[in-house]
Amino acid sequence: MIRGKADVAKKRILILGGGFGGVYVAVHLGKMLSRAELEGTEIALVNRDNYIVFQPLLADAISGSVELSHVIAPIRRMAPRAHLYTRDIESIDPRARTVTLSPGVRPTPLSLNYDHLVIALGTRLDYGKIPGMQEHASPFKYLGDALFLRNQLVRMLEEAEAERDPEIRKRLLTFVVAGGGFSGVRCIAEMNEFLREAVRVYHNIVESDLRLILLQRSDRILPEVTASLASFAQKLLAGRGVEIRLSAELKAVTANAVTVEDRRTHQTEVISTRTAVATAPAAPHPIVTALPLPQNNGRIVVDQTTEVPGWPQVWAIGDCAEIKQADGKISPATADHAMRQAKTCAQNIVASCRGASKRHFRFTGLGRLGSLGRRSAVAEILGFRFKGIFAWLLWRGAYVAKFPGLDGQLRVIADWVLDAFLPCDITQLRIFHEEAVHREHFEAGETVFANGDFGDKVYFIVQGEAEVERNGERVAKLHPGDVFGEAALISNQPRNATIRVSSQLDTVAVSRSAFQQLLIHLPGLSNAMQELMSDRIKVGEDLKDLVRKANSLAHDFSRTDRPR
Amino acid sequence: MIRGKADVAKKRILILGGGFGGVYVAVHLGKMLSRAELEGTEIALVNRDNYIVFQPLLADAISGSVELSHVIAPIRRMAPRAHLYTRDIESIDPRARTVTLSPGVRPTPLSLNYDHLVIALGTRLDYGKIPGMQEHASPFKYLGDALFLRNQLVRMLEEAEAERDPEIRKRLLTFVVAGGGFSGVRCIAEMNEFLREAVRVYHNIVESDLRLILLQRSDRILPEVTASLASFAQKLLAGRGVEIRLSAELKAVTANAVTVEDRRTHQTEVISTRTAVATAPAAPHPIVTALPLPQNNGRIVVDQTTEVPGWPQVWAIGDCAEIKQADGKISPATADHAMRQAKTCAQNIVASCRGASKRHFRFTGLGRLGSLGRRSAVAEILGFRFKGIFAWLLWRGAYVAKFPGLDGQLRVIADWVLDAFLPCDITQLRIFHEEAVHREHFEAGETVFANGDFGDKVYFIVQGEAEVERNGERVAKLHPGDVFGEAALISNQPRNATIRVSSQLDTVAVSRSAFQQLLIHLPGLSNAMQELMSDRIKVGEDLKDLVRKANSLAHDFSRTDRPR
Repeated sequence: MIRGKADVAKKRILILGGGFGGVYVAVHLGKMLSRAELEGTEIALVNRDNYIVFQPLLADAISGSVELSHVIAPIRRMAPRAHLYTRDIESIDPRARTVTLSPGVRPTPLSLNYDHLVIALGTRLDYGKIPGMQEHASPFKYLGDALFLRNQLVRMLEEAEAERDPEIRKRLLTFVVAGGGFSGVRCIAEMNEFLREAVRVYHNIVESDLRLILLQRSDRILPEVTASLASFAQKLLAGRGVEIRLSAELKAVTANAVTVEDRRTHQTEVISTRTAVATAPAAPHPIVTALPLPQNNGRIVVDQTTEVPGWPQVWAIGDCAEIKQADGKISPATADHAMRQAKTCAQNIVASCRGASKRHFRFTGLGRLGSLGRRSAVAEILGFRFKGIFAWLLWRGAYVAKFPGLDGQLRVIADWVLDAFLPCDITQLRIFHEEAVHREHFEAGETVFANGDFGDKVYFIVQGEAEVERNGERVAKLHPGDVFGEAALISNQPRNATIRVSSQLDTVAVSRSAFQQLLIHLPGLSNAMQELMSDRIKVGEDLKDLVRKANSLAHDFSRTDRPR
Repeated sequence: MIRGKADVAKKRILILGGGFGGVYVAVHLGKMLSRAELEGTEIALVNRDNYIVFQPLLADAISGSVELSHVIAPIRRMAPRAHLYTRDIESIDPRARTVTLSPGVRPTPLSLNYDHLVIALGTRLDYGKIPGMQEHASPFKYLGDALFLRNQLVRMLEEAEAERDPEIRKRLLTFVVAGGGFSGVRCIAEMNEFLREAVRVYHNIVESDLRLILLQRSDRILPEVTASLASFAQKLLAGRGVEIRLSAELKAVTANAVTVEDRRTHQTEVISTRTAVATAPAAPHPIVTALPLPQNNGRIVVDQTTEVPGWPQVWAIGDCAEIKQADGKISPATADHAMRQAKTCAQNIVASCRGASKRHFRFTGLGRLGSLGRRSAVAEILGFRFKGIFAWLLWRGAYVAKFPGLDGQLRVIADWVLDAFLPCDITQLRIFHEEAVHREHFEAGETVFANGDFGDKVYFIVQGEAEVERNGERVAKLHPGDVFGEAALISNQPRNATIRVSSQLDTVAVSRSAFQQLLIHLPGLSNAMQELMSDRIKVGEDLKDLVRKANSLAHDFSRTDRPR
């Protein structure tokens, strides 16, 4: 057991990324290296989390048919011979052969040198192109996303149950998923099942109030499989109540709506909703883009041994690598391929250590499998096509078999058995609270807040314009750099005006409690606010009063924002 | 089914609080009222969450022997005839007979009037008395607390695994629980089991590195049971590696240590730790304290029918009520008693509606049961005492039987069965990120940050003093109202000084990303910072540069802070 000693003499194989690619390189190296070799080598793996997310089951966590904590597997158990660093990566310097990791509890970054470097960082979500997507759409990639989404669904039911305004009820009960590939289809299928079962315990909601909409850019869903299987899936989902919009492009997202354009007619429609999920397009990892290695479309170009040409002992695999196979085809970005590449990579690192000759990567894939929710799926395996319950059993079997570790497999099976008999779990965990400082996007015509509302936030305009209305009349225009909404927070009165958005508007919103804290402690802010407010209305006394209450407020603040 | 119609003619029985008291009033009313009566009555229940936490199993969620989502039960299923409002309570006006609820998705508060009011709001945690407790100690009362604590334990193991400094390793691997009642004992017992099993997969940590300390104010643990059972529990815990400190009083908590005073010798000791759990004393709910009803020690005084004297049709039960029984004894604050009071309360509300005579509350309790972790417990039932494995089986049986709903019972049993065979779950869910604006407490002698550290936060002094050191020399003194730590955030360089605390220090800390956002958008702040910084060092260009980068930074900010 190593007890904090400096391992100067040890060789280090440094693997970046804890997806299927990175973890399986560590798993294979641990098995392939001899005992003596292992003693002289540190297999180091860097990943933000100490678990791997088993993506195919992530959607099951929405409906609760698999427990959230069961769709992940601990990397330390999968690769017991590897040293896991649960940190973010700050930078990679392939010339100096070092990688810098982010600080942990101690505010000091950690620097690791290496002999071999394996880059398996995958991709990131690409929010950049659609206004408001980053601020208001939920992604569906990480574990936290599934947890967030499940709670969001219950929250909407809870809110709709107490809501009397029919327009707002409709908005709360409309759910939009953008992206009609396997991931989006799985996601809306599980949302659909969960919601239709859950509404039964709500007194004021009936199933026909629910509206689930799937947006797909192209003219069919599931581009991963043949047209006939896709058509089967489409009919099945439609029969279960999911509205499918083809040739529909997401144009903007706000807290209250999505804007969709029909790509054939170029007409736009605004769908009122509080829940937009985007199975967003992938973008290269910014750390990968910054590397001096050969790249194509943001992917590191490697040879058939998975090594980077011209950079000996630097390897890249998985979604962040471009591997051209012998037949000239580029190995696709799937978990199956990443796992096979991991094996080739590990073999070649061992060969390189031993001075043996390297192998070429060769794998064409076995097929594609995708569940459509309870008791149905589509599959294409070795050229054969399957659909319905048989494909679904195949899907469950295949993915349980692939799940890392017998204990994990047993947990998943136990969940499926219990789920078949027990009612769905409708508890809403309020562990996500809104950031104290966050961005909000609005589209033209929307209302930021209305006269008489409770004052929950103050807004700073980053770009765009808005109008202040009192008694139905426009009294002022707001521009970038302007502040609004502070009066209700300082005076503790309801909003005294309505703010209507006149163009696309980007704001920074600060929550009530954070604003009150900042007002008291940030030099300059209190004066600036006092000036601003005396221009607008007379509430100077309230502001002074607020500053006097400094300590008691500060106290309340930390208490209220503690997660329960 | 009610579809948003105004229920003007309906009588409303409004129950505040979703603990055992409140929920069981709703359950009993749903059963006791006739079909006709139910049609003319709304049983309304207000609770922040849509579930009830089954407190006795909360500690099991730390070790993972019961899944976190299985220690709660959905209120909608338990009390299907009640209308649940998942909101916070803003105010109660017993003269106007209305209750105002906090806003939901819509920023508009909701006002409910009532015919009968049942107050079952329990108690709140009392952080007030110990410096730093609110900022740095984890409570152990709500579901989020158990989730937070479990992740905190894994995080400390992950950090210790990568840490080379022996002092810091020791701090990371020391865990302190304050409070030696059932709750604290259960909590440290489960933490102990989890940690001792989990360390096995860490290369650089051995079991003897772990230090778990239980602090108890009085001279014995478990005041709830007899001295001999308490002594059995104490020996058992000590044998399993828990250090028990008697007559030990918690005096202060910081991010890096707890200060403990020996009540016999009055000597204080500073224990270096990153994990302090406080099973904090209870305080009255502030909304209850503000009521014009008769109160004693923050509890509403009710008669033996659970009705408030002088306030007809206002009832109070559970921990927020003081009920004197026929024998003159005050009914203790336990779940058992709350459930029995709930039944009496429901019976008397029905009697009041029907004009029948009311009953008196009469219950003395059956006994006390407390688990000590795997295969041991202590119990006192109807005067008989049990300990060890028999008490433990009794404990499991009793609490499964009490768990609301057959589906919930099955889930708990399935968890226990799987837990007996499968290894513990060591995955760390990083869903809690630090608040952008939060308070931090320091004790004299501590270091806020050191020269060369990464700049992660800026601090504003609320009270207390600190010293700025450069090259070992004191160069400045900081006072309330002063700001420090802004330079490293604006210039993107490491800390250029060390901040040492010279008295108890309370600060408001703002995270790097939030500070950069605020700097760009908050009027006045940027100027104030520029003035401040030009006084201290020359980094004016950096600040201008930062403001130029406004939009890209703003963009990065929301991305980084998204929960994964």
